[in-house]
Parts: sequence; C-alpha cells; structure tokens
Amino acid sequence: MKRVVIVGLGFGGLSAARALAGRGMELVLVDRQNFHLFTPLLYQVATGSQEQESIVYPLRDIIRDWQHTRFRLAEVREIDLGERILHTDQGTISYDELILSPGSVPNFLGLESVKQYAYALKYLTDGVSLRNHILGAFEQALEVRDPEQRRALLTFVIVGGGPTGVEFAGALAELVKLELWRDYAELSREDVRIIQIEALDTLLAPFPRPLGVYAAARLERMGVEVRLNARVVGATQNSVELEGGESIPSSTLFWSTGVKAEPLVHQLPVEPVRGDRIPLAPDLSLAGHPEVFVIGDSAYVEKDGQPLPQMAPVAIQQGEYVAGVILARKEGEVPAPFRYRDKGMMAVVGRGKAVATLFGLNFKGFLAWLVWLGFHLISLIGFRNRVVVLVNWINDYLFFGRKLRLITGETNPTPINGGDPDREIAHAP
Amino acid sequence: MKRVVIVGLGFGGLSAARALAGRGMELVLVDRQNFHLFTPLLYQVATGSQEQESIVYPLRDIIRDWQHTRFRLAEVREIDLGERILHTDQGTISYDELILSPGSVPNFLGLESVKQYAYALKYLTDGVSLRNHILGAFEQALEVRDPEQRRALLTFVIVGGGPTGVEFAGALAELVKLELWRDYAELSREDVRIIQIEALDTLLAPFPRPLGVYAAARLERMGVEVRLNARVVGATQNSVELEGGESIPSSTLFWSTGVKAEPLVHQLPVEPVRGDRIPLAPDLSLAGHPEVFVIGDSAYVEKDGQPLPQMAPVAIQQGEYVAGVILARKEGEVPAPFRYRDKGMMAVVGRGKAVATLFGLNFKGFLAWLVWLGFHLISLIGFRNRVVVLVNWINDYLFFGRKLRLITGETNPTPINGGDPDREIAHAP
Repeated sequence: MKRVVIVGLGFGGLSAARALAGRGMELVLVDRQNFHLFTPLLYQVATGSQEQESIVYPLRDIIRDWQHTRFRLAEVREIDLGERILHTDQGTISYDELILSPGSVPNFLGLESVKQYAYALKYLTDGVSLRNHILGAFEQALEVRDPEQRRALLTFVIVGGGPTGVEFAGALAELVKLELWRDYAELSREDVRIIQIEALDTLLAPFPRPLGVYAAARLERMGVEVRLNARVVGATQNSVELEGGESIPSSTLFWSTGVKAEPLVHQLPVEPVRGDRIPLAPDLSLAGHPEVFVIGDSAYVEKDGQPLPQMAPVAIQQGEYVAGVILARKEGEVPAPFRYRDKGMMAVVGRGKAVATLFGLNFKGFLAWLVWLGFHLISLIGFRNRVVVLVNWINDYLFFGRKLRLITGETNPTPINGGDPDREIAHAP
Repeated sequence: MKRVVIVGLGFGGLSAARALAGRGMELVLVDRQNFHLFTPLLYQVATGSQEQESIVYPLRDIIRDWQHTRFRLAEVREIDLGERILHTDQGTISYDELILSPGSVPNFLGLESVKQYAYALKYLTDGVSLRNHILGAFEQALEVRDPEQRRALLTFVIVGGGPTGVEFAGALAELVKLELWRDYAELSREDVRIIQIEALDTLLAPFPRPLGVYAAARLERMGVEVRLNARVVGATQNSVELEGGESIPSSTLFWSTGVKAEPLVHQLPVEPVRGDRIPLAPDLSLAGHPEVFVIGDSAYVEKDGQPLPQMAPVAIQQGEYVAGVILARKEGEVPAPFRYRDKGMMAVVGRGKAVATLFGLNFKGFLAWLVWLGFHLISLIGFRNRVVVLVNWINDYLFFGRKLRLITGETNPTPINGGDPDREIAHAP
C-alpha cells in the first residue's frame, strides 16, 4: 500500500488528511504537538477570554477511526528527497508521497532586537505567555516607584495593523477597561496606553479601504492610539524604537507584521521567494519532485499575479486540492492546476463590531460581528470546545466578564525592586 | 486602621478574608499565585476531564469590590514576629494581625528517591505536568522496541489509598479504557497496568471500613490492581521499589500519602508536631503571639485526642473562626475555643459511583456520586467555571469522552530511542 506522509496538522495538513483518509492508502501524520491549534482565537487566550484548552483539539481523537492511519508525535529535522525518508527527533519515517504543511514563524523583518523582546501569537504557549506577561506587568506596576518605569510597564505597543493586530488591540483595550481598571484600582488609568503602529497609511490593508478607516475609528474610540505611516526599527526590554529616532517607553511589544515560511522548507532544493516561501508547480508539487507537495503558509502560490495570503482558508483549500491530486494520479488522471476560491476576510474590532469582505461585499458593525462569531464557532473542532467557547463569549459579551485573568506557570513575577527588598509594598490606601 | 495580613488564599485564607472584608480594618492578602485553586478537582485535570482554567479563579475578581483591601502577588520569605513585618520576594509587608494559611507540601515520608521521581497533585502545574507525562508515556511506548521498557512506560503506580489516590486511580483507569485504548490501538491492552499501593490493610482508611472495601472492589472491577499492606521504600526513573525487595518496572509513580506543613511555618518559634504542623492555642493563635494565627494544613489542632485531617472543610471553618476571633477582640470579647464541626467526607470511585460518610451516615454508589457532583459544583467559585465544569462532566459522563488529551507546554517528548535515530518509527500496520 502506498504511504502518504503529512508533516504538520494545522489547517492545511488536517484538510489533506481528512480528504485522504479511508481512500486506500497508508497515512502517516506527523506533528510536534498532539493537537490541532485553532490559531484565529489565540488572541482571545492572550486577553483572558478563552482558556487554552478550548481552542485546541487532540489529533488522535480525530483520526482514531480512520483506516491505515497512524500519528507520530515527532519533529522533522531533515528531509531526504533522494531516499524519500524524513529524519525526525524520534527516528525516521519513509514516504511514497509527502505533503509538507509545516506552517510559518513570525516575521520579525530581520530586526534582531525585536525578535529578542517581542511577543507574537503563533503557538499555544504564546497565548498563555502573553497573558501572563500582560497581567504580570500590571502586578509589577503596583510596586514601581519611578513613574516613568510604571508608565513603561503599562504601555502596550502593537506593531502591525493587519487582522491579528487589530483584533488583539481591541481585545486588549476591552480587557483593560472591563476588568483591569477595576482589578488594579490603585493604578492611575491615564498611565495605561495601548498604541497600534502600522507602517502603511491604513489599518487592515488587505481589506477595502473604508473598512480600515472604520476599524481605526473604532479602536480610537476604545482608547487605542493608532499611528499610521510609522515604522518600528528596534526594541529594548523597556522601549520600542521608531524610525526617525522616537523611542516609546514600553515593556510589552506585540508583533504582528505577518509570517514567513517555517525554516524546515529551506532544506528543499528550491530558491525561496517572498516571505521565504517555496514556489511550486501548478499542482503544488515541488519542481523535479512530483511526489512532494508544499501547502499552507510555507507555499508560494500566485493568483492574478498576487501572492495568496498566508491564512487558514488558503491552506484548507490547498490541502483538499493536493489530496485530490494524489487520488487523481492513482487513477491515472491529470489534475487541473490549483485555483484559490476567495470567499473573503473578517476581523473583529472590539465587542459587538467587526469588518468583513465576503463574496465581494463589504460589511461592518454588529451584523459582521455576528457572522464572525457564527463562522468561528462552527469552524472549531469538537462539540465540547464549541460549547465552552460559547459560554466564554456569553460571559464576556453579555455579562462583561473575563474570568481567565490568570498568571499561570511555574515562575513568580520578577521582583521589580530587587534593589530595595526592605521597602513596604502594601502602601496605605 | 488596624491591618490584617493573610498569607495564602487557599480555602482557609479565602474564608478568613471573606469574613473580615468590610468589617472596618485594612486587609492585605498575599499569595504567590493570582488565583484560588480548587484542589479537589486537580486530579481531573491530570486525567483529561477538566482544563486547568476551570478549577481556578482570579483572586482580584473576588476582592475588588471589598473596602480597604489590597492583594499582593508575592512569596513570603521571612516572618519577623518581633517587628511584625513579612519579608517577601517583592518587598516587605507590615501587619498588626497575621493569619498564616500557607497550605502544605506533599509528604514523601523522607524518601529522597521518591521525592525526585514521583508526581504529586498540589499545584496547578502539577495537574498539567502529570497529564503531559501520562500521555507522553503512551506516545513513547509506541516507539520502544524492548517489551520490558514498553511495559514500564505503561505501568502506573499510585501510592496511597486515601481519597486522592482512589479518585485518581479511578479516573486514570477510565481515561485508559474510554480513550487511550482507542487512541493507541497499536499498543497491546495487556501492557497497560494501574497498580494502587496502600500500606494499611484497607483503602480509604479514614472512612468506615465497608466503604474502603467497596472502593477496592470497584477499582478492581475497573482493572486497577489494589495491593494492601504494601509499602514503597524507593524509586528510580523506571521502577518502584517495595519493602521486601520487590521492584515494579514503572515510569510513572503518583504519590498521595498525605501532606505536611508548608516549610514557611518552620520559622515560627514553636516545635512542630505530626506532619511538621504547628500546635496552637485554643483560639488558633501562636503561643506568645496572640496577633499571629495559623490555619489550614499547616495548623495542628486536635479533636477528641485525634488530629484534625488536612482537608478543605477544616481550613474553611478555621478561617471563619479566626476572623471571628479578630472581630471579637476588637469588641473586647473573649472568643470560645475553636471546635470543628465534622460534616463528613466523600470520594469518587470511577464513573457514577462514590462513597460518602455524611452526618454519621454511610452512602455508596450512584446517589453518593450525585451528591459528590452537586457539592463540588456549588463549591466552585464563579458561574462560568461551574458551567464549564458541568459541560465537561456531561461530555465525560454522558458521552464518554475526554477531549483534553493534550500534551501542552514548550517541550517535545524526550526521544526514547536516541541511540538509534535511523530506525523507522511508523511501522507498517
């Protein structure tokens, strides 16, 4: 029986696996996590509306009734195209056909200092780390005497005005207003700043322009300072450096200027193009290696001369497509080239409002938000997760409460006044 | 205004804080976590039925509308009884009256090798670590060639037949039968063993004897090997050593032989007694220091010549009591000595069955289980948590599904066959 190996069970890999399951070939699925992560809601973990468990789903639960399918929890280290063998941290896996859907890593635009200090949202642990960091900054701000240091702790800089940046900015602004102002009533509200920085002259650049203008106005009404045409060139632990010399004191830099291909694909004998992505044949196979496919964020595919965006719907369609190619070849058929069917994009801009461009029509406001909620709810895997996410949304949106303001993990917050251990930290009210 | 400082916001500290809030004194609450942990359900996190977030609740949410109350996220390092000052990792906190409710640590009975290799359930991270470890053992077992090593990975030894040990054993046996047998169909079911070891001649020793007999019979029917009158004297990474020389190959040792006082209280100028606990005056204050109280697991209090058990109801009643003492003293009254009102104990023994001794009556079976469910549901803090826990129970108990079989965290599983990186790990079915 021919063996198809799929590396990476994100949106693309999982959709390919679903389409191939039970179709008369051996499937080996490889991922370094044992769950599928629903990344579009990761920002809600970072801002205390969802627990991490409700946006992930165990892979073995999905696949265990599939025929001739096995899962291996392993990280691929090396791809041997000649021998058709993957070398992983757990051992080797041979393949007849290979689908690479390893995803992407944050694109820090080559800025080393940013890479060192910035937070991004890519992995499950990122959501929890960022939540811990935001809440930890408020805890520390209580104990800082230097007003400048306190303001830096309470200044949150968000770089990138795409959907992730906009959704995170809105969710953070609401977390602060709904909960943290009351949790930390000892702090001055004026000290809390959320600054969104975008290098272009509009937010949500891939959307029609009026939607970007609407999003900026909404965020500003929520207290977010939106700065367009501004470019970040560096960072320290306590500042964000802008082009032109301005320095913003801030101990939280959230980075969302897009992604680039997962470094694993650099092993392929093809010159990567924009965003380190791999250019491919029209059937998404690798030049000279028709048995190897690349899909999702690491694949470079154009439509009408423009590269396809690195988002879930593209990966899902590519996964279904390459599964179709593999099945067609088995029957001796020649598949038609991949064509992306663009159904649109959506982004939430705070409670009860969203923007969407769907099937060529633009929506904004409450209706777009309801569509966003419904779409994400049905996209989640598993009945339990849908119910828990819905419970959290009801709690958040109807009762205005986010009860996941937790600082978890092994570590205590770093003492900020280590130099002065004898200072009283619970001042009189 | 007089300042009362409470160290540790577990069941005891929180109950004291609630009783003192808004009663005309300044309250400073100190904990090294920013949440209250509902420990009785921690074993359900370890066995994949509850997410960690649903059994914790943010402390600031509870206290933020209380007058003259502040919370400090800090770890107490030193208690200066003379100056009435606490030294923490964040700075100092002075007090007029001090309630110490720091909780307890697992009691490894002085066995260093057990301390090094055993898992216990005390902190929130313990639940997740243990879940990751159990699932990781199954993942590794897939790749191990040596049958003995594989059996060790799939042998789970539970030491201690008290409520925690019994509840964990039942939940683990069900996780294996309901989910893991199907998730890891490549493994042989006979290789999975769960062994419960108890040094006494009965499980659930604090309960009336028929309930312990019932629990042992239930667990055995669920496939747990119950070994009474057996004593563990040591451990290695891959074995558990019994008195008499027997060695059980096992890479998972769960330890639940009770707790001892949190080491912080050893700083108090009082000789600790059984379980390192601090003996106290009849009003739970420290000898020579009427302004200092110790409550909960670290306090040693007797009733009818027997030490009170280290469990939540004792801590809760003690918290309410010392709050009453502080309020009474303010009015110049002399409070009556502390008296524990024993309402009973409960323990789940797998799906749909529990044992309970309540108000002197014994219950076992389905009714006891319903009482257990209802009691724990109302004891949880927060509407959202109750709903999420209930959703998980419905999912688990009615639909027989545990969807939280997640290996989270930064680390990949350790390669078990590091010596043989070239071995194929996805064998033909």
